[in-house]
Amino acid sequence: MIKLYLTPGTRAGRVAWLLEELKLDYELEVLPFTKEGLKSPEHRSRHALGRVPVIEDGDISIFESGAIIQYIVDKYSNGDLKPDINSSDYPYYLQWFHYCEGMVMPPMNQIVVQTVLLPPDRRDETVLNQAKNLLSKSLNPVNNFIQDKDYLIGDFSAADCMLGHSCYMATRLGAVSEDMLNIKKYVSNIESRSAFQKAIKLGEDVDNPIG
Amino acid sequence: MIKLYLTPGTRAGRVAWLLEELKLDYELEVLPFTKEGLKSPEHRSRHALGRVPVIEDGDISIFESGAIIQYIVDKYSNGDLKPDINSSDYPYYLQWFHYCEGMVMPPMNQIVVQTVLLPPDRRDETVLNQAKNLLSKSLNPVNNFIQDKDYLIGDFSAADCMLGHSCYMATRLGAVSEDMLNIKKYVSNIESRSAFQKAIKLGEDVDNPIG
Repeated sequence: MIKLYLTPGTRAGRVAWLLEELKLDYELEVLPFTKEGLKSPEHRSRHALGRVPVIEDGDISIFESGAIIQYIVDKYSNGDLKPDINSSDYPYYLQWFHYCEGMVMPPMNQIVVQTVLLPPDRRDETVLNQAKNLLSKSLNPVNNFIQDKDYLIGDFSAADCMLGHSCYMATRLGAVSEDMLNIKKYVSNIESRSAFQKAIKLGEDVDNPIG
Repeated sequence: MIKLYLTPGTRAGRVAWLLEELKLDYELEVLPFTKEGLKSPEHRSRHALGRVPVIEDGDISIFESGAIIQYIVDKYSNGDLKPDINSSDYPYYLQWFHYCEGMVMPPMNQIVVQTVLLPPDRRDETVLNQAKNLLSKSLNPVNNFIQDKDYLIGDFSAADCMLGHSCYMATRLGAVSEDMLNIKKYVSNIESRSAFQKAIKLGEDVDNPIG
């Protein structure tokens, strides 16, 4: 059985969401965002930088949400949640799947650093504004693409677990501008899914500054 | 035939390198890092933010180096350059493939912004040092993993076109510390490959501030 290491409010939610969508059994270990949790020697033996998600599956232990999601889909979805490799949707499935970490998350990380993680006296307004500006630019193509769509690709796919999760996080950070109506609708579609609702609540009783 | 839009010194080099490794025919369009090239309306119709790589393949037009590399491998490599899905290497192939954009590129982007792209009076020494520190931390697990290996996975794989290219770029930026001996050896292995040598020279006659 897959074991998922999760901290609420992080990319680990993507993996929990996928596991819930696929109705797979999994074991969960919730790690608080502390020296005893994420940054403990024990967790650093799984990910040297003390990050989540990490999954273990038999002898395998891997990190990186994109890798884990691709692994679970390839291994356990029976072809669900991704388009057939010969379908015309497949290249765009890949594009939006990778766009998440390539374009959306770097400015979002910077926003979290500048508004939550750094102590107030070390925050930098210029860096924060650059990041907000870049995030807005990066979300724009997503906002355009999902016009008249409920999800990125087809009925729903693992690309939503990546980029849709980022859109949800960006919304929670207040970083989605009012005119991005399609993203707002997209995020409310996501929030209506019971698998998402279940996943996003996991470990919410654990103390976490970015949850 | 695949058409690749490339600017030298960018992630587009990853795709050129892969195409050269696979000995695929492709058409190349080199775009300078200018308002007439990358940032032209024509190129913004391919990628709204004016980025490369972009490929066209028949009716398909996609961006994001990770997506493009996965697309080309899935579609044109006949099973080469990635481990079989049931192999014990496969999860780690995915992990390092995604680690590139997830962990290594965000601080590297910031270093390029703070040392090349921003005019000197807008650069921030604190932000630059945070990015250098994070990049070093992010490369450390790579340095440990490739001890006693020539390449990340097996003889060579598309994960090298992603993360190996980042290690090469980090080295060029002077951001790989002297004690990361395994990464230094890894980068020299990469530099010895004729496909890499050919790819990295493409468009080098075009004016480019980050080439």
